[in-house]
Amino acid sequence: MPPALELAVVACMDTRHSVEKVLGLKHGDAKVIRNAGNILDDGTLRSLIVCVHRLGVKHVAILGHTKCGMTLVGRGEFRIAKNISATTDVPLHEVMRPDFQRWLGGFEDVEENVRRGVQLIRTHPLMPRDLQVLGLVYDNENGRVHPIID
Amino acid sequence: MPPALELAVVACMDTRHSVEKVLGLKHGDAKVIRNAGNILDDGTLRSLIVCVHRLGVKHVAILGHTKCGMTLVGRGEFRIAKNISATTDVPLHEVMRPDFQRWLGGFEDVEENVRRGVQLIRTHPLMPRDLQVLGLVYDNENGRVHPIID
Repeated sequence: MPPALELAVVACMDTRHSVEKVLGLKHGDAKVIRNAGNILDDGTLRSLIVCVHRLGVKHVAILGHTKCGMTLVGRGEFRIAKNISATTDVPLHEVMRPDFQRWLGGFEDVEENVRRGVQLIRTHPLMPRDLQVLGLVYDNENGRVHPIID
Repeated sequence: MPPALELAVVACMDTRHSVEKVLGLKHGDAKVIRNAGNILDDGTLRSLIVCVHRLGVKHVAILGHTKCGMTLVGRGEFRIAKNISATTDVPLHEVMRPDFQRWLGGFEDVEENVRRGVQLIRTHPLMPRDLQVLGLVYDNENGRVHPIID
């Protein structure tokens, strides 16, 4: 079933905001994709391809939020790797492969991360040139959403 | 911030159900990851690694739902590929690479898809052996959730 607003939202898995409430969406208005850090990982790109090329989505909004936990992951990959190694059979040196930090997707700047996602969709070869892509950041402290101008 | 119930939910991006309402979750109870078909794609695995090894998640629920649109994608990859080709610069033969259908993640059986996701997490080398993983299916017609016994 296509979403009523022909909209897909990429948001964070974080619990401090409800995507529907933040954007004033009714049930059925949008497809909602959520992951750690609202980044354009491979699975999110896959989901957007289905949205755009099968479900009639014409607008994509990337919704970041202030104080995102993924800003800690950007410098905290060793802590995660140690925890993996301590709770599984995989030795630390195997967890810490050269691409591990990049794969985790941590970042330092919430707005820059949203901007990067917007650019990635806009320039992606499998996305239509007339797809509208908007970047937004939700402020956990004052409850406001502001657009990322680019 | 860790989720209050130490729970992460992997659900579908579909609009016909609110994850929180279906599972009776309050805001902050769980991290919610959503993608096309609630499958364990690379991005969802990445998000779960952050949940489990950084945010104290001890329980993972995979929540499928009846009449999932991804059961149509499993046999409809040619339609999607044609739409991509018609709206971008990528010729059809380049869209239809050998792994395109698999990458899209379509499936035929909703319960089997949930069961496959549960098994993938339970046997994944980077997941702790004491992680609890539960499979659930939401019935769009009667509003009930039933567990997938395996």
